[in-house]
Amino acid sequence: MNNFKFYSPTYFVFGKGSENEAGKYVKRFGGSKVLIHYGGGSVVRSGLLDRVKASLKLEGIDFVELGGVMPNPRSGLVYEGIELCRKEAVDFILAVGGGSSIDSAKAIAAGVVYDGDFWDFYEGKAIEKALPVGTVLTIAAAGSEGSGDSVITKEEGMLKRGAGGEALRPVFSILNPELTQTLPAYQTACGATDIMAHVFERYFTNTKEVEITDRLCEAVLLTMVKEVPRVIEDPNNYDARANIMWAGMVAHNNLVGVGRDQDWSSHGIEHELSALYDVAHGAGLAVIFPAWMTFVMKQDINRFAQIAVRVWGCEMNFANPEETAKEGIERLKKFLTSIGMPISFKELGAREEDIPLMVEKLGLGEKGTMGSFVALTAKDVEQIYRLAL
Amino acid sequence: MNNFKFYSPTYFVFGKGSENEAGKYVKRFGGSKVLIHYGGGSVVRSGLLDRVKASLKLEGIDFVELGGVMPNPRSGLVYEGIELCRKEAVDFILAVGGGSSIDSAKAIAAGVVYDGDFWDFYEGKAIEKALPVGTVLTIAAAGSEGSGDSVITKEEGMLKRGAGGEALRPVFSILNPELTQTLPAYQTACGATDIMAHVFERYFTNTKEVEITDRLCEAVLLTMVKEVPRVIEDPNNYDARANIMWAGMVAHNNLVGVGRDQDWSSHGIEHELSALYDVAHGAGLAVIFPAWMTFVMKQDINRFAQIAVRVWGCEMNFANPEETAKEGIERLKKFLTSIGMPISFKELGAREEDIPLMVEKLGLGEKGTMGSFVALTAKDVEQIYRLAL
Repeated sequence: MNNFKFYSPTYFVFGKGSENEAGKYVKRFGGSKVLIHYGGGSVVRSGLLDRVKASLKLEGIDFVELGGVMPNPRSGLVYEGIELCRKEAVDFILAVGGGSSIDSAKAIAAGVVYDGDFWDFYEGKAIEKALPVGTVLTIAAAGSEGSGDSVITKEEGMLKRGAGGEALRPVFSILNPELTQTLPAYQTACGATDIMAHVFERYFTNTKEVEITDRLCEAVLLTMVKEVPRVIEDPNNYDARANIMWAGMVAHNNLVGVGRDQDWSSHGIEHELSALYDVAHGAGLAVIFPAWMTFVMKQDINRFAQIAVRVWGCEMNFANPEETAKEGIERLKKFLTSIGMPISFKELGAREEDIPLMVEKLGLGEKGTMGSFVALTAKDVEQIYRLAL
Repeated sequence: MNNFKFYSPTYFVFGKGSENEAGKYVKRFGGSKVLIHYGGGSVVRSGLLDRVKASLKLEGIDFVELGGVMPNPRSGLVYEGIELCRKEAVDFILAVGGGSSIDSAKAIAAGVVYDGDFWDFYEGKAIEKALPVGTVLTIAAAGSEGSGDSVITKEEGMLKRGAGGEALRPVFSILNPELTQTLPAYQTACGATDIMAHVFERYFTNTKEVEITDRLCEAVLLTMVKEVPRVIEDPNNYDARANIMWAGMVAHNNLVGVGRDQDWSSHGIEHELSALYDVAHGAGLAVIFPAWMTFVMKQDINRFAQIAVRVWGCEMNFANPEETAKEGIERLKKFLTSIGMPISFKELGAREEDIPLMVEKLGLGEKGTMGSFVALTAKDVEQIYRLAL
């Protein structure tokens, strides 16, 4: 096991009606002038925004609003948010929505207290401080409600890049599974895929002797395998929604990833798909992950056999563990198909002829690599895209 | 799933040599005058105390010391610590040791900033505030390094009682598995039993639809089943020690217990054993838990069958699930015996004739009950003690 640090100081408020406590927690964590940041119409139409505003008013907290966050959130709105916060002397950002709204809120929070261009952080500059961010989550997917990460797309060149730091961890996050019940099946499945992908990125490691985090990873995956089909069948199944929503947080606050090298190349490979076609991140991951697994499997056949047996319930083929490993990948594909996810370029609407462009945009050049389980060159990535055709 | 709140803001620093960072983290979390609080000679003899002091000096942090914490820590030393902190204007408590030192440090931290008798908190008064506590952990067991709980024994009447609150969560905890390698096998096994018991208390619940926390509980238990025999065989197995140490934190910061009713009667029943005979808490739990399980099993045969299959690897007896449930309890007993734990009054050195006294001290009276999975009366508890003979 590697040395590590783990810090997840977010205060989680989970359950029915919890959004009505938003004002109480903004106050507890020192907010007096709030930017409410959100996406599209559903937050407004459902009455959620009104309930959140009412809870702020109840505590006497002043606020301004900025809606319009899009999936794969853009830098343009971040600049707008930073300007608004400075003008209005905002001291707390409250994101209401899914990972996109939260990621955009984090970018604004870091940008407001920084003299330069916030995009510097997405080019690798360390984030020293940020305004406090609270969240009211409406989609179980990105895990941004419990993480210190944020992913933003820069319109110029459609560059999709991530930034992170302790200062970006939300001070509180409100998770009401009821709010996810109106989500269409496709988006629910995209979110579920994203959650599982966050575990895969951590599970496939060359670090030895990490049984506790292996088992915790498997706990999240087993939960998803049981609960996701239940919400696809019945979108109003509160308990299945609740299990998925909490699994989504656990999958990404890094509890299941400490003490081990993590890979994260599949996320990078996918980012080019969603940046180019503006497809849902989860759908892109459903296409990329089985291809990546097939490409890297031989790095550690027994680890792939382990997930096949422990998560997918395969019988171990002791005479030929590679068969078990392959069977696990097949079961993942069947699972993704069964919940309505694409597993190929064709199903996603991506084009073979764009592969060279996507590879180039990853910027690996002649000698660069990405990922740690297997260090992938540009040629390897091209092969993975082709395996996903 | 029940509504819940989850807040685990402790900064964890895990791995080899991490105790040398104690000073850095005391500084980060605002300490300028520290009470170092510890137990017996091993912390001194091993040189750990000197390394911690050196790290404080390096940061220019002043400190005073109070050693002498005993297993099942006593109120007398807490009063002494409170007095010392006030006299020396201490603003930060650093516990160096196991759960006893940490629990004692938490009691002092709450007592220093309280006008009344600190024991009020252990009689049920809510803890509003406390000095910040940091820890350098030397035993994987109590989980106090990540919890807001503290258990203290009052000499007068040997009353063992718990208190808890958000203010008692350590601000940082340093976990170096190397520090646990010198621990004798018996104490290692006691600690492991305590860790598993923290999961059992949460696992056996009447709350339905809590798959994610079921699976997380099982993840911790599966890790223990694999790793504990390895450290009993080879005390210097760093990786096995590391997995157990992190499992001990996960078992008790309440991540595996949110959203469900928890039981905790076995801890109460055991407290009378360790208060009366001053036996190790883990050894007492090894005696009580199988008896408690046998007594309450019929409340939910399928839950007991589930743990038997998922954790103990039993084959499900579909014709007679009760047999599977019983087999799971038998496997637990065999496991405890294999790591050197007592599983009966006789092995522990407890006496049948003391049972009425222990039952009386629980203070349930005629109509009181304890526990939530099954609400136990004084008569039930007596039967459980007798099942453990």
